[in-house]
Amino acid sequence: MKPRVGLIGLGLMGAPMGANLLKAGFPLVVWNRTAEKARRLVDEGALFGKSPEDVASQCDVLLTIVSDPSALEEVLWGKDGALAGLKRGSALIDSSTVSPALARKIAQACAQKSIDFLDAPVTGGTWGAEKGELVFMIGGKKETLERVEPVLQALGKRFFLLGPNGAGQTVKLAMNLILALQVEALAEGLELVTSSGVEPTKLIEVLQSSMGRAPVLDVKAPVILKRDFTPSFPLRLMHKDIRLAMELAKENGIELPAGAAAYQAYSAVKARAKADVDYAAIASYWKKN
Amino acid sequence: MKPRVGLIGLGLMGAPMGANLLKAGFPLVVWNRTAEKARRLVDEGALFGKSPEDVASQCDVLLTIVSDPSALEEVLWGKDGALAGLKRGSALIDSSTVSPALARKIAQACAQKSIDFLDAPVTGGTWGAEKGELVFMIGGKKETLERVEPVLQALGKRFFLLGPNGAGQTVKLAMNLILALQVEALAEGLELVTSSGVEPTKLIEVLQSSMGRAPVLDVKAPVILKRDFTPSFPLRLMHKDIRLAMELAKENGIELPAGAAAYQAYSAVKARAKADVDYAAIASYWKKN
Repeated sequence: MKPRVGLIGLGLMGAPMGANLLKAGFPLVVWNRTAEKARRLVDEGALFGKSPEDVASQCDVLLTIVSDPSALEEVLWGKDGALAGLKRGSALIDSSTVSPALARKIAQACAQKSIDFLDAPVTGGTWGAEKGELVFMIGGKKETLERVEPVLQALGKRFFLLGPNGAGQTVKLAMNLILALQVEALAEGLELVTSSGVEPTKLIEVLQSSMGRAPVLDVKAPVILKRDFTPSFPLRLMHKDIRLAMELAKENGIELPAGAAAYQAYSAVKARAKADVDYAAIASYWKKN
Repeated sequence: MKPRVGLIGLGLMGAPMGANLLKAGFPLVVWNRTAEKARRLVDEGALFGKSPEDVASQCDVLLTIVSDPSALEEVLWGKDGALAGLKRGSALIDSSTVSPALARKIAQACAQKSIDFLDAPVTGGTWGAEKGELVFMIGGKKETLERVEPVLQALGKRFFLLGPNGAGQTVKLAMNLILALQVEALAEGLELVTSSGVEPTKLIEVLQSSMGRAPVLDVKAPVILKRDFTPSFPLRLMHKDIRLAMELAKENGIELPAGAAAYQAYSAVKARAKADVDYAAIASYWKKN
């Protein structure tokens, strides 16, 4: 029999993940702060829980994917929080991007109640979430991963077990630091070229036949050239991920020079943004208005 | 009849380019500050000129590829310099990486003597130079490119005409800024992961199935993990290219935050390097000794 799955967080990522869980035939109970966002999943057969605690108490495997550390702490430890509801022997998978320290704190709380825990942030964006082709970066025990893998199979295609709890978040923060810097690098290269009076498309053409070509640049270059920053991965979330990476670096006593500079640049664009924009909007750093 | 080709600069790039010109059957006259480096090409049939001026006076198409702006100014305008030797109606192709301003200055000097000029820096590294698969980033006139293309065909596979003189150098500086930042990003990501106690190979694995995968990272990641920094593209040259990019940005009145930070980091590693190392040695930024 298929395990009953709980899903907390129905944002850009959570909503399509929920749809894929239903498609794969898992009984699904969901919760979201804005209940409105659950409507479509409920129409397709999901139950809507009264609270995170209520969802947690009804499921064998609980998946959380919320926007930041404070949102995660709230759904886990807040009023009617999920940790109070989770049964002994159930499993919690957190696919939010948070600090490795928070992942370890959750692992500890779970261990006290004999709940298996994986930190399992994802990469692949909304496109990957919709197609069920996410890549999971996982910290935790191999046995836990084996146990929940049938659930994850509905959502992704690659599952990297990277070490003990916290390792998934560590690698995710490093990954997003690299992606943020790749797009920052593209934006700086384009600005250098356009401010010199050369067509920016020329740089893209050459880049695509160079060692520097990368899917993220193929995707973001047209977005930057058209200045259509409809969010695929929102800048506010990338900004939060760079902040978490910089905090981790500080904890570890290391300096990340380009990361620090990019963090300042993303902060400046975030402060100025009037609406939710994709992180490729880092290219508007040089626009004065 | 094949044009007589001159080649000035027989370093890591120039030497294999010379070999490919001979292989393609071009009569070749070469010159290098250290004559020693010409021996193999001379054995294979090249003539060794007495000076840059001497080489220039004997050829229809002159190719220069030296390490930096001052070396280029020296071979062009110095004692027995090439510009004094070039015949009316000949063509000069400079594949060094220098500032767009210097490229425009050369173009002006050439125009006064009815010499066609292209700034045509390359990407593809020593591997591309050896295989004859370089990518040329070209500034200048279409007719000039058409005229010298049979010569360039012996050296490369893609020829991007990017705008008037200077445009080739502009795009090259932007390209190398992007490559330098991609490798800086990889190094920072790896340092974040290792300082957290996670295996660096794990980050590489995940990166290779992400949107951030790029050939330059595939090539440099093993170099960084093995700490074998035998130069493929020397850090001192990448450092010079970032410096030129930052100078261009300053001329254009724009700020490049991550570029500036990376320039500081590459400077620190360059100052500490005891031997010639690849630019992937930026990953030794965090090694205290």
